Amino acid sequence: MNGALSPAPIVTAAVLVIGDEILSGRTKDKNIGFIAEYLTNLGIDLREVRVVPDVETEIVDALNALRHRYTYVFTTGGIGPTHDDITADCVAKAFGVSIDYDSRAVAIMKARFDAMGTEMNEARMRMTRIPKGADIVHNKVSAAPGFWIGNVIVMAGVPSIMQAMLDDVAPKLKTGVKMLSETVRADAREGDIGSELGQIAKANPDVIIGSYPFMDENRGPNTNIVVRARDPQKLTAAKRAVEAMLVRIKAALGSVAPR
Amino acid sequence: MNGALSPAPIVTAAVLVIGDEILSGRTKDKNIGFIAEYLTNLGIDLREVRVVPDVETEIVDALNALRHRYTYVFTTGGIGPTHDDITADCVAKAFGVSIDYDSRAVAIMKARFDAMGTEMNEARMRMTRIPKGADIVHNKVSAAPGFWIGNVIVMAGVPSIMQAMLDDVAPKLKTGVKMLSETVRADAREGDIGSELGQIAKANPDVIIGSYPFMDENRGPNTNIVVRARDPQKLTAAKRAVEAMLVRIKAALGSVAPR
Repeated sequence: MNGALSPAPIVTAAVLVIGDEILSGRTKDKNIGFIAEYLTNLGIDLREVRVVPDVETEIVDALNALRHRYTYVFTTGGIGPTHDDITADCVAKAFGVSIDYDSRAVAIMKARFDAMGTEMNEARMRMTRIPKGADIVHNKVSAAPGFWIGNVIVMAGVPSIMQAMLDDVAPKLKTGVKMLSETVRADAREGDIGSELGQIAKANPDVIIGSYPFMDENRGPNTNIVVRARDPQKLTAAKRAVEAMLVRIKAALGSVAPR
Repeated sequence: MNGALSPAPIVTAAVLVIGDEILSGRTKDKNIGFIAEYLTNLGIDLREVRVVPDVETEIVDALNALRHRYTYVFTTGGIGPTHDDITADCVAKAFGVSIDYDSRAVAIMKARFDAMGTEMNEARMRMTRIPKGADIVHNKVSAAPGFWIGNVIVMAGVPSIMQAMLDDVAPKLKTGVKMLSETVRADAREGDIGSELGQIAKANPDVIIGSYPFMDENRGPNTNIVVRARDPQKLTAAKRAVEAMLVRIKAALGSVAPR
């Protein structure tokens, strides 16, 4: 603990989406955007996302590539009761640990199915297979647990269940200094502000400046300028530079500017 | 051309989404699902998706990893007029070719901006930078072109523009034998059918069988079983096996089954 002198830690993450149904287009992923926003709000930088099919070598290789690069890897999908749910086995393989029915998971599932009057069969037992050394990740929606091993957090693919699992792990995650963000609506087209915006970006190296064109119902092509930084003073300085630039450009374009 | 004796070609693809705004969660990606469905309908297998930030080394490394593994790589994002649009330069770097203002792209943009009465400034000229040897990809929405170099197709991030670019390249893509797909609504819970479904999957090695739980408003937990194959006869055989299994299981569960 070096107090104020130590640089703020940067906590990073990757998301690994596992599932043929996303790659075939049959299911439209809703988890990437949710996790991205969730992690940003916690002060964790999502740095990479991969989507891979239900194929062991693809899952294991992606896991090993990602877990050595980022603070955390969040996986979604492939932890249900059917033959195509192979995520838990792949995670065990990536970490080189054994996998077996986990007594904690069995207790959770048995209690759930007893309450429902449902048989705990072989397929449902598959959902209690958890790599050795993993912690259980609880979910309030379906009870079926995910798990957390090393820096990898394994979650369901069904959005409501995935979200419940994120809520379970969030209080235990390391978090960094939150990335602050301000959006300035330019009321100008990207092409009119691009050169000057590039100069502002160069003059503010600790601030990330993004430019996002969109169609404005009232005035046609428009642009959102997003200014992001961890330091609030640097953020404010860059935002003011952007606003001053917009005033200058709009004055210069004057009445000749097309809408 | 070996005619009927040659095995059906399999054409594969990856998507590389480029953009800080997707990773921060500010913008929710709509392109992955669209491209996935589009390629599936063409007979191209989407095998992997990656999302990377607006950082040169990340883009170049991902491009080089993907373009050597798949028939095609489709990129989205980072080809606008601002400083954070670095995709074209990264593609040139990945291929080891030069990049400069492209006379075809300049002509397209100049015609467009002349018609609009808009100045062709330095920022807009940035959109005409195209790696040497690339073909132009047209779009009817904004005119600003994408490009195609080697097996990499570079498209805009704005969905309507990206979709117009896909339509431009689609007729020129190699396509394989289309993956056929049938969905069987199980009217049963995943856990009730998992074991038998696994046996059907093993007995039908040329058929991909996926199981997707969902919440049914009327009957609670339900499951869609998706059967996929390139051979229509093998598809039908597997689908019939699934249907017969469902009849057996529902009879066995009978009246004691919870809904």
